Amino acid sequence: MDRLIDAIEATQNPSVVGLDPTEALVPPQVVAGLAEEVRDSVEDPAEAPAVQLASAFYEFNRTIIDAVAGIVPAVKPQIAMYEALGPAGVDVYTMTCDYAASRGLYVLADAKRGDIGSTAAAYAHMLTGVDGFDPWKVDAVTVNPYLGTDGITPFVDAAKESDKDLFVLVRTSNPSSSELQMLDLADGSKVYERVADLVEGWGADSIGAHGYSRVGAVVGATHPEEGKALRTRMPHTFFLVPGYGAQGGTAADVRGMFDADGSGAIVNSSRGIIGAWRKDGRYDPSMSADDALALVDETARDAAIRMRDDLRAVL
Amino acid sequence: MDRLIDAIEATQNPSVVGLDPTEALVPPQVVAGLAEEVRDSVEDPAEAPAVQLASAFYEFNRTIIDAVAGIVPAVKPQIAMYEALGPAGVDVYTMTCDYAASRGLYVLADAKRGDIGSTAAAYAHMLTGVDGFDPWKVDAVTVNPYLGTDGITPFVDAAKESDKDLFVLVRTSNPSSSELQMLDLADGSKVYERVADLVEGWGADSIGAHGYSRVGAVVGATHPEEGKALRTRMPHTFFLVPGYGAQGGTAADVRGMFDADGSGAIVNSSRGIIGAWRKDGRYDPSMSADDALALVDETARDAAIRMRDDLRAVL
Repeated sequence: MDRLIDAIEATQNPSVVGLDPTEALVPPQVVAGLAEEVRDSVEDPAEAPAVQLASAFYEFNRTIIDAVAGIVPAVKPQIAMYEALGPAGVDVYTMTCDYAASRGLYVLADAKRGDIGSTAAAYAHMLTGVDGFDPWKVDAVTVNPYLGTDGITPFVDAAKESDKDLFVLVRTSNPSSSELQMLDLADGSKVYERVADLVEGWGADSIGAHGYSRVGAVVGATHPEEGKALRTRMPHTFFLVPGYGAQGGTAADVRGMFDADGSGAIVNSSRGIIGAWRKDGRYDPSMSADDALALVDETARDAAIRMRDDLRAVL
Repeated sequence: MDRLIDAIEATQNPSVVGLDPTEALVPPQVVAGLAEEVRDSVEDPAEAPAVQLASAFYEFNRTIIDAVAGIVPAVKPQIAMYEALGPAGVDVYTMTCDYAASRGLYVLADAKRGDIGSTAAAYAHMLTGVDGFDPWKVDAVTVNPYLGTDGITPFVDAAKESDKDLFVLVRTSNPSSSELQMLDLADGSKVYERVADLVEGWGADSIGAHGYSRVGAVVGATHPEEGKALRTRMPHTFFLVPGYGAQGGTAADVRGMFDADGSGAIVNSSRGIIGAWRKDGRYDPSMSADDALALVDETARDAAIRMRDDLRAVL
């Protein structure tokens, strides 16, 4: 986790921009502008709309990455949005990660993978690559804990081997997360607290120079009290905090998820930054694609600076 | 779930073949034989080994699919093995699913996806496709329950829309699955039992002609007693049962996971079928790729028939 913490210190900004494009989040003229190029490049006309949207995601992402590089330390591309479009989408996912890395950003793959044994080891190639070739180019991956230690160890091994990290789901930001995570256990604790203890244990032998292990935890901004308690319970576990902004979490809500030095957590915002152009009065459907992307650039940068300053104000 | 159950009845065989290739499971001469073709096709020489292995996976999978079509009703390609190779691997994954579908097999994508809201909806495009284009061509997908109902509803909606199914992890086959799944709750039940109740509820409004809903459950063969109890607890939930064969589960172990009519479950075997060639004395490293694939074909077919007959014997 040292590389991420160094990047946070360099930018003085514990926030990460979620690269979760959807059709609604990309200005339509950017998508439309790619129609001809895509029509000429695909073998099967049926796949043209998916390839076109994937290509638009890449244009959009590059604009966002250029806008926020130097301001934020990291980006978090959500693979689901790309996978939805099939192999062309996955290709754009890796291109996005590669481009973000080339701009000096720490790339956190939000994939929430989870399986066992040789299967988990296969997923963990997302960190190590295969045969000296790294198709994914990410610095960390999110992982689901439901399968227990068997599902985590291969990721921890891969993280150590490649100087990378993982973040395990502990207390997610969504309303129904409580159905499982908040169940009362016979010993008086909650399920997510037991998961928290497992996560702290999984990281115990990979604690870095800054006092945090390679095994981080996902703790939603929508649970400020629990997040504060987890901060104490998991002293060597760095937090990835989703749920800020669009999902309702505020800077005050996440304050308790940081340690006494103002470290220990990174807060994600996706729609609040990549969708800021939609709330800007200057957007006009008749704009050119270039003008729309210029607006995306400006509004994303402003939103990223605003979020940074909001977080700085409470830390 | 009706299409799967119909396919099981047609073959009189409640088993599914896991298409989980790894480098060790594909005869090396099949990989080596693709070197020249791949070298000429890739833009970046660094990616040649990954593309070559992905291409070998496809050759291997086609052989397995041809061997077992007509004997088994379904295949379960494990996406982790393909994702490990990057976009080229994902491409082969979709080609494998497409080929299996063309041979009349029900295709169960073992992806164990799980996220919330719009992100889960994006993953659920694996069932519905996008804009009338379906890049994935699968009939069902496995899903992780840790995020609760928010993470499941989009998959249920997609399954209904596309006449497809999902299988939610309840009690997985691996040793450390107990760390979370077997925790004692304050009300005297176990975590996995609460998940089981949620799964039964998630399927309540999609029960088909055979009495089973579109929301299945993953229940490991390595837990025969719990599987039997779950069969009673989840009367409308079809089971996908991994852990047979290489992981130690036997036909007798899975008997209790079927209903009184011998329906209600499908049992997966991966290595026991696709890796059967490795335990056959006739394999010789100096064999040609074609001869090796002929041996893969014969041994996979024999192993699939043996598994079918073992299951028939206890049902």
